[in-house]
Amino acid sequence: MVNKRFFLNQGPFLLKDLIAATNAKLVRDADLNLQIDDLAPLENAKNKELSFFVNRSYLSEFSNSNAGFCFVLEKDIKHAPSSMILLVHEHPHKAYAIATNLFYPNSSNIQDIAKTAYISEKAILGNNCKIGQFVVIEDDVVISDNTIIEHNSVIKSGVIIGANAKIHSNVTISHSIIGDNVIIHPGAKIGQDGFGFASDHTGHMKIQQLGIVRIGNNVEIGANTTIDRGSIQDTVIGDMCQIDNLVQLGHNVKLGTACVIVAQVGIAGSSKLGNFTVLGGQVGVAGHLNIGSQVQIAAQSGVVKDVADKQKLGGSPAVPIRQWHKQNYCLNKLVKNSNIEE
Amino acid sequence: MVNKRFFLNQGPFLLKDLIAATNAKLVRDADLNLQIDDLAPLENAKNKELSFFVNRSYLSEFSNSNAGFCFVLEKDIKHAPSSMILLVHEHPHKAYAIATNLFYPNSSNIQDIAKTAYISEKAILGNNCKIGQFVVIEDDVVISDNTIIEHNSVIKSGVIIGANAKIHSNVTISHSIIGDNVIIHPGAKIGQDGFGFASDHTGHMKIQQLGIVRIGNNVEIGANTTIDRGSIQDTVIGDMCQIDNLVQLGHNVKLGTACVIVAQVGIAGSSKLGNFTVLGGQVGVAGHLNIGSQVQIAAQSGVVKDVADKQKLGGSPAVPIRQWHKQNYCLNKLVKNSNIEE
Amino acid sequence: MVNKRFFLNQGPFLLKDLIAATNAKLVRDADLNLQIDDLAPLENAKNKELSFFVNRSYLSEFSNSNAGFCFVLEKDIKHAPSSMILLVHEHPHKAYAIATNLFYPNSSNIQDIAKTAYISEKAILGNNCKIGQFVVIEDDVVISDNTIIEHNSVIKSGVIIGANAKIHSNVTISHSIIGDNVIIHPGAKIGQDGFGFASDHTGHMKIQQLGIVRIGNNVEIGANTTIDRGSIQDTVIGDMCQIDNLVQLGHNVKLGTACVIVAQVGIAGSSKLGNFTVLGGQVGVAGHLNIGSQVQIAAQSGVVKDVADKQKLGGSPAVPIRQWHKQNYCLNKLVKNSNIEE
Repeated sequence: MVNKRFFLNQGPFLLKDLIAATNAKLVRDADLNLQIDDLAPLENAKNKELSFFVNRSYLSEFSNSNAGFCFVLEKDIKHAPSSMILLVHEHPHKAYAIATNLFYPNSSNIQDIAKTAYISEKAILGNNCKIGQFVVIEDDVVISDNTIIEHNSVIKSGVIIGANAKIHSNVTISHSIIGDNVIIHPGAKIGQDGFGFASDHTGHMKIQQLGIVRIGNNVEIGANTTIDRGSIQDTVIGDMCQIDNLVQLGHNVKLGTACVIVAQVGIAGSSKLGNFTVLGGQVGVAGHLNIGSQVQIAAQSGVVKDVADKQKLGGSPAVPIRQWHKQNYCLNKLVKNSNIEE
Repeated sequence: MVNKRFFLNQGPFLLKDLIAATNAKLVRDADLNLQIDDLAPLENAKNKELSFFVNRSYLSEFSNSNAGFCFVLEKDIKHAPSSMILLVHEHPHKAYAIATNLFYPNSSNIQDIAKTAYISEKAILGNNCKIGQFVVIEDDVVISDNTIIEHNSVIKSGVIIGANAKIHSNVTISHSIIGDNVIIHPGAKIGQDGFGFASDHTGHMKIQQLGIVRIGNNVEIGANTTIDRGSIQDTVIGDMCQIDNLVQLGHNVKLGTACVIVAQVGIAGSSKLGNFTVLGGQVGVAGHLNIGSQVQIAAQSGVVKDVADKQKLGGSPAVPIRQWHKQNYCLNKLVKNSNIEE
Repeated sequence: MVNKRFFLNQGPFLLKDLIAATNAKLVRDADLNLQIDDLAPLENAKNKELSFFVNRSYLSEFSNSNAGFCFVLEKDIKHAPSSMILLVHEHPHKAYAIATNLFYPNSSNIQDIAKTAYISEKAILGNNCKIGQFVVIEDDVVISDNTIIEHNSVIKSGVIIGANAKIHSNVTISHSIIGDNVIIHPGAKIGQDGFGFASDHTGHMKIQQLGIVRIGNNVEIGANTTIDRGSIQDTVIGDMCQIDNLVQLGHNVKLGTACVIVAQVGIAGSSKLGNFTVLGGQVGVAGHLNIGSQVQIAAQSGVVKDVADKQKLGGSPAVPIRQWHKQNYCLNKLVKNSNIEE
């Protein structure tokens, strides 16, 4: 059962509601008017609660679950407890995602424009915007309808934010143009100077950073992530990108559509990614590289060369993932054959 | 001598006070009423100042130190200058820790509840809480006695914080239940959405994150660290965990008691650690893993498999630490034998 | 053309102004009174715009550029379009840096001391300081002339900041003495407790952190970077250091002059760097090490031993860079010779 102190359950819903929302199929006959009270993980779920099963490492939790209802793959039906009502879906994780949005849709407890917020007279706010305490909105900012800015965040002059966005607390945004339905988590810093200077033996001279950050629609940006503005071109985040916490994107970086950037990744200046490319946690990408579409880079890898579409890489320096596995295999074999004692 | 601009010395103390507080033993006879004015590092300490020696890389600083008083291991007595008054302790570092808390106990220059703070009428504050400027405390927050919230921090609705906690500036906490004696350093972000979405070829659908963060007693959390709330289970930080700066803990991560998580570590979603486990700086732990108790992982390692209790690992992918040393040894030998020229 | 929504162009300037400012030399005769309107990247620049060329990966952009004016190396003259007016400079990147500061000098839209700021009566502000909304400046802070503190930043008691500094939004600074002309980007946290405790089987005892942070002149510190104060010595950042985003500097770390610390680097407690040393992105440096001057460490390397001046290292554990390249070469050769199939 979800913690009622923090989450407001919009249910219960009926079995038929869930089927209608997800297009899942019932395996066994069941009363379509059965009531589903809540969502729960397999190991805690009760009779009137809905769960999902897709990751095989949790097979025993699934087979022993008391969940009344569960989204499953067709092939996993045989592992289910006999009393469980199974909702077969080709993508149970997605069906569950739909269910979470049905029971617990986006919401905010910020109700209006806080009197303590500082909002420039030269800023333009759309309808139904909600602004938290001690927010600062400078001159010439434009924010579209239904966007929420949480407490203590700072929107610097000229920034444009689309509709239905949610900017959490303690965020700073400058020099940016941001699309609709964007979520920016607490503490993210967007649009500050990139790391730009010209060095010689006397030291470093600052290069003024004259590009901006352009963020598409339906983008999510993690807590305490930093995205520098362009040096003279722009830094660009394509539609539907998912960016996790503590990620660093350097100046002029360009992400295509729907890239997934896991926590603590760093992408150096001027590198470009295609669409649907996935970087695992703590990956580093050197500067001025072209990484294609549907590329997958294993966690902690270091990418130092261009990468073609659909490649899978691992290691530091990164090599094709099978090559990386072979490197590790050969290295351990080498150790074994060496008979060294410590 | 400690900088008086920033630190208020509660001393001087007498030699007998330090002995009483630490159970250290005197090596040589000394007047128990000798006055100790302050703490200092070995290389700067003066006649009336107290230092400690434990790390052998600083042996020459120890042997040449002018410190009047020093916590030492019994075996290091022979390296000490003849005029130094030696306080033998089996754990000099801990004795020194006690001394720091004697001379410079926890304090705060925040004296009361700032008039500029925004505190919901539906929040409950214990006795003697101190709240800084521009702090936001939303509805239904409960904070116990003697807890301090520093400037510009945000405590979102429903959060519970125990007694004697110190939340530094520019922190955001939501969806969390936090124990007693917890320290949260500036900029930490706790309880925001985990990185949760269901992906297919059309893009990514957000999965509402419905778990919370539970933090035990006597936990310390570093600056700009991020701890995501659970997806439907909870993220759990056990008692006495020490978490450094810029650490990322994904949704559903569970740390046992007294784990040490050094800076820039990332632990992916749903992985669990036992008790007294130590992760070195920049370590990455993949998702859904079970890491045992008293495990030690070398800095920058990448853990991709379950780890049994008391194992020591290194490398990426991580292997037993001796295997990692052998890998490096064999690799360098291979290079040597290859006679390649660049 | 630079985005006029966000940047205020102080031009146009004449060709002779740029020559005077940079000491560049004209290759071909040209009217010294030609007007230069703006700066632009090679691929977008127009007739009256100025660009620069130095990175050979952009050779085709250079050869096909419509830029009217361009800083170039003498050896690249032959690749230039015939109509381009070439400004030869031995360091085109530096000449361009000068141009950016001419067209777009440092500026701030914060005009005075915000009425919402909380400034202690015991703080001392120099002439012409500008303080943003909801800034907190505690007792005994001293800030010199022309320094700007942006919104929602917190300057804790006793901190000293020099002249002409710019502290961006959502920054927290405590226990620090900071020089002139320093730039601190949004969200940086400076001066908090280092990761200090004494551990035994019962848990961890906090060691009060009694050193401070000393930052020299002309230092730049990136967004969401964390710099812990010393444990009893000080943490020291030398003049002209450039520190990127999300960097972690542990207690007692000492950087010499003009070091370059790229994003997501972590330096553990008590390690020291010389002058003009460069750490690539995501490098980790273990504690208590001495790293010399003019050292270069490749991205993602893990430094576990002292490093002499002018060494170049790579890998984890880090070895001389040629050794690292040889390791990778030999490892791939080993894989090739093994004929393993997966």
